[in-house]
Amino acid sequence: MNIALKVSYDGTCFSGWQIQENGRTVQGELERAICERFGFFSRVTGSGRTDAGVHAAGQVCNFVLSDGIKISAERVADALNTALPPDVRVLESVAVPEEFDACRSAKKKTYRYSLYFARRENPLSERYAVRFGEKPDLSKMRECADLLEGEHDFSAFSATGSSVKTTVRTVSSIKFVPYGTEYNWEQNGMHVDVCGNGFLYNMVRIMAGAMLDCGTGKLTADTVKRALCTGERDLLGKTMPAKGLTLLRVEYATDVFGASEGRMQI
Amino acid sequence: MNIALKVSYDGTCFSGWQIQENGRTVQGELERAICERFGFFSRVTGSGRTDAGVHAAGQVCNFVLSDGIKISAERVADALNTALPPDVRVLESVAVPEEFDACRSAKKKTYRYSLYFARRENPLSERYAVRFGEKPDLSKMRECADLLEGEHDFSAFSATGSSVKTTVRTVSSIKFVPYGTEYNWEQNGMHVDVCGNGFLYNMVRIMAGAMLDCGTGKLTADTVKRALCTGERDLLGKTMPAKGLTLLRVEYATDVFGASEGRMQI
Repeated sequence: MNIALKVSYDGTCFSGWQIQENGRTVQGELERAICERFGFFSRVTGSGRTDAGVHAAGQVCNFVLSDGIKISAERVADALNTALPPDVRVLESVAVPEEFDACRSAKKKTYRYSLYFARRENPLSERYAVRFGEKPDLSKMRECADLLEGEHDFSAFSATGSSVKTTVRTVSSIKFVPYGTEYNWEQNGMHVDVCGNGFLYNMVRIMAGAMLDCGTGKLTADTVKRALCTGERDLLGKTMPAKGLTLLRVEYATDVFGASEGRMQI
Repeated sequence: MNIALKVSYDGTCFSGWQIQENGRTVQGELERAICERFGFFSRVTGSGRTDAGVHAAGQVCNFVLSDGIKISAERVADALNTALPPDVRVLESVAVPEEFDACRSAKKKTYRYSLYFARRENPLSERYAVRFGEKPDLSKMRECADLLEGEHDFSAFSATGSSVKTTVRTVSSIKFVPYGTEYNWEQNGMHVDVCGNGFLYNMVRIMAGAMLDCGTGKLTADTVKRALCTGERDLLGKTMPAKGLTLLRVEYATDVFGASEGRMQI
């Protein structure tokens, strides 16, 4: 049985999703839990990798459960959770067709970059968001976001040295979602939700930085246009910290995890 | 100079606010930071104690800064923050009159109990909220909350064995604040904000449990009335976990931390 899992994790204490020699990884913990609970090794395929420190609210992955194991797909989630550390949890599990591949079958992903505006750090906000000391001009941020939506060569928005076939991607939407941490008057926050068909290395973190720089007057819309044309990383500012980034959801041709509990989707 | 501090902390790795022999405490960290930065020991007086695991978004405390130290009250916050661990932060510091005592001068406190409704644990919500597996009937919760507002003998809502002069307190308001964790359809949350002139040991955590039990039909409004009359702890359910509780704010006769940065209040 090919099983898809929707997984959530707090990235703080991980070296990222992808299994590696030295470093605690989410993939590693999932593969270990599968081995512990079901007695065999099965490779876990994630929709994509997330960096050290990056969180996930809706990562999707799949693995093959040996035919000999008698458990319904829906109960795999609970079985794995009893073998996982507290910072990784399977939210749902469902049987999927043999040809389903969490990475290759993925159509779109939404990443969220979370900011909070405050004079000083607040420990209750610091784990999952990044402090910004000034309130940016939202219209300037929106102007920058509008330039980034659509199909572009995002080379300038990618960490140098990464190797991919093409650096062209389509960002279908960038949404600003305000939120109040409701703790005190000066603390309110904003999520920047970026949905696209694929992402280059550090792309959302560099995009978030560019939007904020436009909002504070450090970067102009013209420079952003130039960056999209020339692919020059140096035209843009620093890559924003990993802890502000959360993989919100991954979308496929049809709903993998239906609204009804455990219904099998194609 | 008598200095008041507004302090925020993530209670996860603390044995509580109050200094103790074996255990890392918030008061202990603040006193250590004062000693490190200013070269002398000064007792820190908090508005009240918080238990192990309980968070604070707006704890207030005060301490006396020796006359010899040349620093403005407003800059004490930044000075202390450089000597504090990441899970405690001074949000603001201000000079207050000599007679100001964070505990004795406190008029009201607001505690927040945070819940999220989900079938399974979500690591991104688990640190500061408690999962509840079913959606409670809000009208039944409100009915219970209405009984708890006002001046009552809250003995039944206090951990047995605690010793205070009187168990009568006034709860000025209980508000339900819904919030969406926006991560997935089944995850949404609710804060229960309780404002009162004082709180018995575990009072808010027991109140939150009673409201939820009313919301799920495990407890009736009549039993809550009886508990208020008789003071019997056993009529009510379990004390809710500490991690769901956050001290939101402490109020004094006048604003200690004015809207303007660093203005001295009486």
